Amino acid sequence: MPLPRNLLEGHRRFLRDQHAPERGRYIQLAEHGQIPTAMVIACCDARVDVSAIFDAAPGELFILRNVANLVPPYEPEGRYHGTSAAIEFAVLALKVPHLIVLGHSHCGGVAAYRDHASAAAPDDSFIGRWLTLLDDVELREREVAEFGLETAFELAAIRSSIAHLRTFPAVRQPEASRLLTINGLHFDIASGALLALDEGQDSFTKLIDPESVAA
Amino acid sequence: MPLPRNLLEGHRRFLRDQHAPERGRYIQLAEHGQIPTAMVIACCDARVDVSAIFDAAPGELFILRNVANLVPPYEPEGRYHGTSAAIEFAVLALKVPHLIVLGHSHCGGVAAYRDHASAAAPDDSFIGRWLTLLDDVELREREVAEFGLETAFELAAIRSSIAHLRTFPAVRQPEASRLLTINGLHFDIASGALLALDEGQDSFTKLIDPESVAA
Amino acid sequence: MPLPRNLLEGHRRFLRDQHAPERGRYIQLAEHGQIPTAMVIACCDARVDVSAIFDAAPGELFILRNVANLVPPYEPEGRYHGTSAAIEFAVLALKVPHLIVLGHSHCGGVAAYRDHASAAAPDDSFIGRWLTLLDDVELREREVAEFGLETAFELAAIRSSIAHLRTFPAVRQPEASRLLTINGLHFDIASGALLALDEGQDSFTKLIDPESVAA
Amino acid sequence: MPLPRNLLEGHRRFLRDQHAPERGRYIQLAEHGQIPTAMVIACCDARVDVSAIFDAAPGELFILRNVANLVPPYEPEGRYHGTSAAIEFAVLALKVPHLIVLGHSHCGGVAAYRDHASAAAPDDSFIGRWLTLLDDVELREREVAEFGLETAFELAAIRSSIAHLRTFPAVRQPEASRLLTINGLHFDIASGALLALDEGQDSFTKLIDPESVAA
Amino acid sequence: MPLPRNLLEGHRRFLRDQHAPERGRYIQLAEHGQIPTAMVIACCDARVDVSAIFDAAPGELFILRNVANLVPPYEPEGRYHGTSAAIEFAVLALKVPHLIVLGHSHCGGVAAYRDHASAAAPDDSFIGRWLTLLDDVELREREVAEFGLETAFELAAIRSSIAHLRTFPAVRQPEASRLLTINGLHFDIASGALLALDEGQDSFTKLIDPESVAA
Amino acid sequence: MPLPRNLLEGHRRFLRDQHAPERGRYIQLAEHGQIPTAMVIACCDARVDVSAIFDAAPGELFILRNVANLVPPYEPEGRYHGTSAAIEFAVLALKVPHLIVLGHSHCGGVAAYRDHASAAAPDDSFIGRWLTLLDDVELREREVAEFGLETAFELAAIRSSIAHLRTFPAVRQPEASRLLTINGLHFDIASGALLALDEGQDSFTKLIDPESVAA
Amino acid sequence: MPLPRNLLEGHRRFLRDQHAPERGRYIQLAEHGQIPTAMVIACCDARVDVSAIFDAAPGELFILRNVANLVPPYEPEGRYHGTSAAIEFAVLALKVPHLIVLGHSHCGGVAAYRDHASAAAPDDSFIGRWLTLLDDVELREREVAEFGLETAFELAAIRSSIAHLRTFPAVRQPEASRLLTINGLHFDIASGALLALDEGQDSFTKLIDPESVAA
Amino acid sequence: MPLPRNLLEGHRRFLRDQHAPERGRYIQLAEHGQIPTAMVIACCDARVDVSAIFDAAPGELFILRNVANLVPPYEPEGRYHGTSAAIEFAVLALKVPHLIVLGHSHCGGVAAYRDHASAAAPDDSFIGRWLTLLDDVELREREVAEFGLETAFELAAIRSSIAHLRTFPAVRQPEASRLLTINGLHFDIASGALLALDEGQDSFTKLIDPESVAA
Repeated sequence: MPLPRNLLEGHRRFLRDQHAPERGRYIQLAEHGQIPTAMVIACCDARVDVSAIFDAAPGELFILRNVANLVPPYEPEGRYHGTSAAIEFAVLALKVPHLIVLGHSHCGGVAAYRDHASAAAPDDSFIGRWLTLLDDVELREREVAEFGLETAFELAAIRSSIAHLRTFPAVRQPEASRLLTINGLHFDIASGALLALDEGQDSFTKLIDPESVAA
Repeated sequence: MPLPRNLLEGHRRFLRDQHAPERGRYIQLAEHGQIPTAMVIACCDARVDVSAIFDAAPGELFILRNVANLVPPYEPEGRYHGTSAAIEFAVLALKVPHLIVLGHSHCGGVAAYRDHASAAAPDDSFIGRWLTLLDDVELREREVAEFGLETAFELAAIRSSIAHLRTFPAVRQPEASRLLTINGLHFDIASGALLALDEGQDSFTKLIDPESVAA
Repeated sequence: MPLPRNLLEGHRRFLRDQHAPERGRYIQLAEHGQIPTAMVIACCDARVDVSAIFDAAPGELFILRNVANLVPPYEPEGRYHGTSAAIEFAVLALKVPHLIVLGHSHCGGVAAYRDHASAAAPDDSFIGRWLTLLDDVELREREVAEFGLETAFELAAIRSSIAHLRTFPAVRQPEASRLLTINGLHFDIASGALLALDEGQDSFTKLIDPESVAA
Repeated sequence: MPLPRNLLEGHRRFLRDQHAPERGRYIQLAEHGQIPTAMVIACCDARVDVSAIFDAAPGELFILRNVANLVPPYEPEGRYHGTSAAIEFAVLALKVPHLIVLGHSHCGGVAAYRDHASAAAPDDSFIGRWLTLLDDVELREREVAEFGLETAFELAAIRSSIAHLRTFPAVRQPEASRLLTINGLHFDIASGALLALDEGQDSFTKLIDPESVAA
Repeated sequence: MPLPRNLLEGHRRFLRDQHAPERGRYIQLAEHGQIPTAMVIACCDARVDVSAIFDAAPGELFILRNVANLVPPYEPEGRYHGTSAAIEFAVLALKVPHLIVLGHSHCGGVAAYRDHASAAAPDDSFIGRWLTLLDDVELREREVAEFGLETAFELAAIRSSIAHLRTFPAVRQPEASRLLTINGLHFDIASGALLALDEGQDSFTKLIDPESVAA
Repeated sequence: MPLPRNLLEGHRRFLRDQHAPERGRYIQLAEHGQIPTAMVIACCDARVDVSAIFDAAPGELFILRNVANLVPPYEPEGRYHGTSAAIEFAVLALKVPHLIVLGHSHCGGVAAYRDHASAAAPDDSFIGRWLTLLDDVELREREVAEFGLETAFELAAIRSSIAHLRTFPAVRQPEASRLLTINGLHFDIASGALLALDEGQDSFTKLIDPESVAA
Repeated sequence: MPLPRNLLEGHRRFLRDQHAPERGRYIQLAEHGQIPTAMVIACCDARVDVSAIFDAAPGELFILRNVANLVPPYEPEGRYHGTSAAIEFAVLALKVPHLIVLGHSHCGGVAAYRDHASAAAPDDSFIGRWLTLLDDVELREREVAEFGLETAFELAAIRSSIAHLRTFPAVRQPEASRLLTINGLHFDIASGALLALDEGQDSFTKLIDPESVAA
Repeated sequence: MPLPRNLLEGHRRFLRDQHAPERGRYIQLAEHGQIPTAMVIACCDARVDVSAIFDAAPGELFILRNVANLVPPYEPEGRYHGTSAAIEFAVLALKVPHLIVLGHSHCGGVAAYRDHASAAAPDDSFIGRWLTLLDDVELREREVAEFGLETAFELAAIRSSIAHLRTFPAVRQPEASRLLTINGLHFDIASGALLALDEGQDSFTKLIDPESVAA
């Protein structure tokens, strides 16, 4: 099957406007590999363009994307743990110094879990079982009050992913040695703002106020 | 921990240069949801910026990223199948009409598998077990000759992921009904070119010649 | 009555060449609705194919077309205000972030108004009354000099429609909040060029020079 | 405000791929005006690309688009009747020989009317008043049975618009003189099919079966 | 001898404020090497902090500094060509895609050459001989008029270095293949502004107006 | 060619965050010249940001950077001795009281010499000939044992550069008069630590233990 | 008369411990002059060692000291205005970019003024007349409440000096051009803390909490 | 405005390294006031750190600093005599037993006077009028011969200041009563040496030979 036209045309623009003027840089990256500054664990949602949110250049971010930016707990048995494999690869092989769990507003995955009996995620489906990773989510009352139930749930899911991250020896050890930092962020599609988790305060606060940067 | 400065500054640029001028569009997307044109299954590699390669706007692509852009075969038992859950969600809930497996050159995951005894992927690690998904890869002699061993392996891995995709009833049925297309692409970091799989010819050919679009 | 043959044949081509290869996309759009990037207010003129001028994909543009791309001022009383209803629906229900008034060269409606006593638009006709919306048009001397009287009139009509747009609270408020942009464009049928209104300079300048893109 | 980038890029493609190869045709159209084959009265919906549905060339279709492709009844008093003006202009000035009312599936306007108390169309809004044009719609039981309530309503709305068209002397007279045909069509976004109104049978039937043309 | 106290204290601050919070990043860079975006050829002058001028992170810029940011012409014979060696290493081994010659205002080296009989650079000194690289500098009359003699000389020296760069096959070839760009910049210490060489216009213009970015 | 975007954006941040708040200081430095505390001879390596390592303010350090921070021996004949010219200028014209040779870990230049037949530095290349300056390097057995071969080689190279520095009369004389000190430092990228050469003990010891300053 | 012994001994230590190890730096400073970062206007009080409070190196601070760190208003007539001359010299000749008025706790001069009939400052004495510069001091009620009368008076005196500074055209102009900043600080002898004036808030707040830096 | 960073960082070191270990001393000084050993009248020059030159502890020296360490003659009329007020305060209120006039080499104030028509000190400026205090300076021929004109001038200026000091009754009387000594010193920046005025011999001799104390 031919590629959908919008992708074909978009690729043509990429070649002309982004790759051609930086061809030397791409060749260098091809030959010398990647040394990403951070690994970002984000959702597949089409409205969450991770590189755009951080205006990152090629080579800057190692990005894992799955439904609802979840991290399973450390389970050394089993076969295909794609998320665990990516985390392990980033930390042990690439030595990325920063892990970021990036949630977002209007998350369809989180909503499907919350609406439980949802047709979008029946219990015996892959998606239904994947979302059981949210079973240990703990809502904060004050976040429900401040942000509403939907957002509070998404914030709790970020905390849960971070907690699961810390069940991995490969994460826990470098973090203890201060070689690895873990950040939790929540992207609000409408305003563009990122809420950042302050684990000391156990609260999320706006990283940069979008009002403050508008021209 | 504070966010790494390059991400903080990048986010500030995003707010100022990308979100602020399109704030209305983001609010609309927040309220109306996503209707992505395609799901792309790509690698976490930092040099593969999927949105950039297709110059895609927010809301346009539903993107799954894991190590080496692999797809496990359909296995209804087991617990956390992140990749399978994402595919299922995209096809059944979002009804995306196009699935694209996007491999790339210089893939560290594929290389780690090939170099088998590699320290980067010991057999009993998550990454080692994840890469066993490549066990059924079949190299094409002519592709080894044309593109070299490394690329030929990456191309074979794309074919393997597509074959695994078709083990999912949720994929096989709409594809049979021509409601879903599946494409295999290979991104060459150095040249920016995409090789596209022509399943009829069982070969990969260049989608757009980068030379032809340079100013 | 049977459909005119050119339309019947054209529709057959549409089914075969455009819809069939994108059937999945159309099904997805059917189920998930529309999230258009922009509303375009254009003329009914047969030479002005809005989707073509922007090479827009299905689902991308919410298009209102009336004679001479006019917008009546906000008048909350009265019954059937088709144009006002469409604007309101686009902004309030669909939350489109961009409004574009697209005029064009050789506009029969504008010409009919200018030639006042024209048989095409007698005073007591619907069209005659509709064109009184142009009564407050203000010609720019320098545009008459630069583009000729006909074009200058069309440009002034675009400005007038934009001014009327801003009499709608539903438009004025999101524009003030930078959630909505308003653009004025003039399509030159002969050259294909778009003139874009720069409100800061109160002038129209060519958006892309057709000479520069020809192969 | 700069034009949204997708429109700017789309326009560039239009210039290069559509206008440049047909520049002579466009210049001719510019100088000689339009002689459209038909007037199509369609909805503003972004998924309904009228020219595409008929694969129409520039100059071929005079297109009026408003919310829900409605036609008000003839009312000689009042001020700004955009739809009536366009119909009058097409028939009297342009003398188009065919009038087509083109409805479509999943019509948000029709749905808003049906869901009556809908927030999207409160009674005292422009859109609410505009949709009262549907007050005289008559559902056909058998169409509810065959196509479901939603589609049956859309089909009834097409009949209503045609009825209103015939209240215009400017339409009734040439139709009576067989100078003008009137067709009712319903576009199904998902399948691409057009249902055509057979007024003799008072029924809608598929114009071309999409299955029959697929490659 | 003990290290001067300001350096010792500064180093302590570096360890505490810059390295400790990014220790993981430094370890990663240590193990994975450097993939610098650009090579900058700058002056040793203490007022020209190259990393600061571009707010560059560790690993971003490969920086050569010598007196007056000069480049000798390609001379394959001879022994210790430190500048030539660095250029060759950057382009051939590191594949840097961008070369930047960064001059600056109040350059003591350029001044010493201009004041010819200067005690700071007697003819038979190393510095005197090094500065003979400026013998082929060509002043632009209009730049003397616009910027004054001192700056005009510094700009001409930048052009000379670029011309010498292009005598290296290792530079000329990738530049011809568009794998390598060459930029000439002049840093004004007082205003912070960079003048950028536009080779097409053979002129220097301000890259960013410092006034425009001040809060 | 336009400047790479990361440099352009970085420069904008420099203007806004560093230069603007200290504009008066920069103007003062521009008018009054430089009185740097020390000259640092460092490597071009992108991971070695000299100003950062000493948290130095503008005007504080006169910095020479070449591949592998080498110093050729005094050779009064010959033409373009960039390194010798810079040393002479610093000591005689600027009267800097401190010379610092700053080596670093993972030095690509030193590695290329050690791996002798390396493709990165063929014998007849500029880089190959430049690295023959390392021919007289003397490894200390105990440093190989303590730090490993790679680091021991880098330390020996620092000693060699210092020995070469002392072949310059312009260096030897003020050092003998205690007007000039010479320090040898080795920067460890991973830990941030500086090893300082104690010439009395002929050994390198850690200047500040990074552990001792971490918060 | 011989120098007091404590000064003679202190000078010997200075020569041995401070000057000898930095002799080259002092020679350089002697030949190249001073480019101080800031001018500090402080009190003669023996407990206020300005260089110590900022741990400043030689050449870093241009320091004026008089009783109570006062600044007379601009008075172009008269003969010997030592303070005005120093300010003028610093700003116009040395171009210092920062002016700092440094008050302190337990200021004898301020106390003498407050205790008015004090024997330490009779009305007809030099000191009595000098302290009339405090006549326009305005106490802040809230500072009296927060810090006590004595400190509040000292803070008000700092504000007064800053106000007088701004009567000098030589100060006002570069400050308006953002070439010169003015800071007000108050040194608390007992705790070592500096209170810094925030003119936006019209309040003094602690610059660094001494508790936070103690080992 | 924030404080310049070097001052902020220096202050942090002061708190940590100087104040914290001596907190009891500072609190005592705060409560009990100052009892300085001497008043030093010195220049504002940034290279003359008075406390350092005498390695003085907090509370030890009452320090007046003005341009060129000048003392105006006793003039009981007039308003703001900062220097006279400080002398009076030190002698009458603080009862300091030693007055020291501390000149220095490379004095910009003295040089400006000598170069008379200097732009740095025009006649009608504050600094110009301040320096007329040097009008009665008397050069010693033998000092010109021994030390050069510049130093001889600085030495003569010290004598002049001492002469002016003695015009103050408040100084003359305790000196006559041997309650007060007056010393003249000249600090040589380059060597660190102090020349001390021997009024009996009318000559300056080195107080301590720096060579004699160097380690």
